[in-house]
Amino acid sequence: MIRDLTDSEARAALPLKWGAVPEGTIPAWVAEMDFAPAPAITAALTAAVGRGMLGYSAFPGTAQPADLDAAFRGFAERHWGWDVAPDSSTPVGDVVAGLRLALDELCPPGPVVVPLPCYPPFRDVVALAGREAAYVEHDPDLDHDDPDAGALDLAAVERHLEAGARTVLLCHPHNPLGRVARRAELEALRDLVAAHGARVLVDEVHAPLVLPGQDRFVPYLSVDPGAVLVTSASKTFGTPGLHAAQVVLTDPEETARLRAVPIAANHGHSGLGMVAGAAAWRDSDLWLHALRSRLRVNAEDLRDLVAQHLPKARLRPLEATYLAWLDLRAYGVADPAGAALEHGVRLAPGHDYHPGLDGHARLNIATSEKRLVQIVERLAAALT
Amino acid sequence: MIRDLTDSEARAALPLKWGAVPEGTIPAWVAEMDFAPAPAITAALTAAVGRGMLGYSAFPGTAQPADLDAAFRGFAERHWGWDVAPDSSTPVGDVVAGLRLALDELCPPGPVVVPLPCYPPFRDVVALAGREAAYVEHDPDLDHDDPDAGALDLAAVERHLEAGARTVLLCHPHNPLGRVARRAELEALRDLVAAHGARVLVDEVHAPLVLPGQDRFVPYLSVDPGAVLVTSASKTFGTPGLHAAQVVLTDPEETARLRAVPIAANHGHSGLGMVAGAAAWRDSDLWLHALRSRLRVNAEDLRDLVAQHLPKARLRPLEATYLAWLDLRAYGVADPAGAALEHGVRLAPGHDYHPGLDGHARLNIATSEKRLVQIVERLAAALT
Repeated sequence: MIRDLTDSEARAALPLKWGAVPEGTIPAWVAEMDFAPAPAITAALTAAVGRGMLGYSAFPGTAQPADLDAAFRGFAERHWGWDVAPDSSTPVGDVVAGLRLALDELCPPGPVVVPLPCYPPFRDVVALAGREAAYVEHDPDLDHDDPDAGALDLAAVERHLEAGARTVLLCHPHNPLGRVARRAELEALRDLVAAHGARVLVDEVHAPLVLPGQDRFVPYLSVDPGAVLVTSASKTFGTPGLHAAQVVLTDPEETARLRAVPIAANHGHSGLGMVAGAAAWRDSDLWLHALRSRLRVNAEDLRDLVAQHLPKARLRPLEATYLAWLDLRAYGVADPAGAALEHGVRLAPGHDYHPGLDGHARLNIATSEKRLVQIVERLAAALT
Repeated sequence: MIRDLTDSEARAALPLKWGAVPEGTIPAWVAEMDFAPAPAITAALTAAVGRGMLGYSAFPGTAQPADLDAAFRGFAERHWGWDVAPDSSTPVGDVVAGLRLALDELCPPGPVVVPLPCYPPFRDVVALAGREAAYVEHDPDLDHDDPDAGALDLAAVERHLEAGARTVLLCHPHNPLGRVARRAELEALRDLVAAHGARVLVDEVHAPLVLPGQDRFVPYLSVDPGAVLVTSASKTFGTPGLHAAQVVLTDPEETARLRAVPIAANHGHSGLGMVAGAAAWRDSDLWLHALRSRLRVNAEDLRDLVAQHLPKARLRPLEATYLAWLDLRAYGVADPAGAALEHGVRLAPGHDYHPGLDGHARLNIATSEKRLVQIVERLAAALT
């Protein structure tokens, strides 16, 4: 059910991931998958293009966003047992736009706690919003096989809150650590922010990508109804270029306020993106099941390949996402991605996710088995 | 060649324009057309969806944006005799995003001159960018049949520049006045801003919609290479929901600087939007020719219908766009659009374009002849 794209198909389908590497180099950097999209999404988009649905997307509260909202609610109920109130989603263009809008309109003034490593636009969007970032660094020397080792350092968060921070930017599941926060951790974070009059702004774009064998994903908003959720089907279903994400709030009055911002503050959402998002949340469970099984296999393959070719590398068991965070410090190369690029594979440089932390890289496993082997072999050739 | 959509087709194709009115009400508000898209655009999009091109759009300088850039250059050469240098276009999500990015990154500090009436997001984007707006009001009492009467009031612009404004936001052709600025006016504006170290930021999204019988459109950048152009095929070809616009600059170094902003500052462009934009600029001349002829007919029909049903209304001959600006003050109704809505037609309220100016409305003529008749009849019933 998961169809691998050939190189030429991938090059035609993924202009960023594949367009940014020369012929012969394997791209394993940006978070896109070398798989054909879910059939329900392609069918819905083809139909929408056929009926000429190329114009402005509808206002929240009218039919099209309502469809996306209902589809997301169905998905949350089926997959996470989470009962989302109707009409809680406000369409935004993408996760970054949603974070920006939330910072500007919904989050209390003051610095923003940003855990490191993080998705690089987290740092940029905080700066663009005119906020100070208060970083909480993950300790790369923690035992990678201890399931608790990748948890957010709440003592460090608390120090920032005591110093005036009022927003905590959470990535859940975590990119690039690939870890799923446990319920008790989320509850402790909720209690901490509540004690300081602060608010959690959570990006759950990787939530459907919790891999088989893990406990069920716990949506942060189900634990802390005062948080702001930004999510999208885009990362799981490979549709980031369509531009539709959702800000989900539990308070209808706050939703109404968010929807009343000028169009100039929230204009990036697309009708085709909403069509794709609804088809993803509503009609693509079987495809998603197959995807997760496939990614589980790829994650195990990666572990075996790394053990074989890069025995001094350290990596956590991948609990979610198709992005593995590799600690390659033992090879003594400050920028392993830079070295790998000269050996025909493009990884995402660790410095982009955690400035100042040498010897790390992010590796995208959502590709064919053959390419995955080549990626690790080429990385090993670059480092050894 | 221009195919009118039936009501049910239009409702399925245009979720904003038609989704925001109840069954039975004719939408003549937002700038979207009740016509089927150009065949080359539908074909290009169908092919792109078929090959799964749903991911992130490519960085500027790689194949996909280069295609959009080349297609725009070809269009500018064929239609306006304007020779645009290669690789001058930087993709942005839409015109509003381009204006925001230009204000933040390219325009000198200081207040922004905004002519009134204006497209409402102009005012919002200036405020969101943290800039003060310096308004220049169009005098609604000027003789509508004097072709020079709708020109920008340069004496008023100069007063603002003398008081510290350093950016002039120009809409060319003008929405909602429907007027095309003459070359001499553009040259005078260029000389004025040069004398004050200021810069013009020009939105030319309606440029291909100069109607038959007018002089050829003069791109502002061809007169003033120091300006910033924001444009898109979206308004002419009915693709605003796809999210691709272009910031065009004549200085390659400035283009390079613009392209180096963090992704968080420029992330709204879509691959499908660029595919549609390239098909529009490159392969849709015959459709555009037919569109302009059709809009010319509709503009004449509107003039006749208004003369018949609303003899006290005033409107300028429509030189460009499919948006007519109606002066209905003689009927003594402050908000004609509000009155019309109760009679089954939705117009765009004049207050949105020129706060404080009573008795005006914007009427979208890009619809079937039958609907256009009903729009004017219903408006007349509301006012008389």
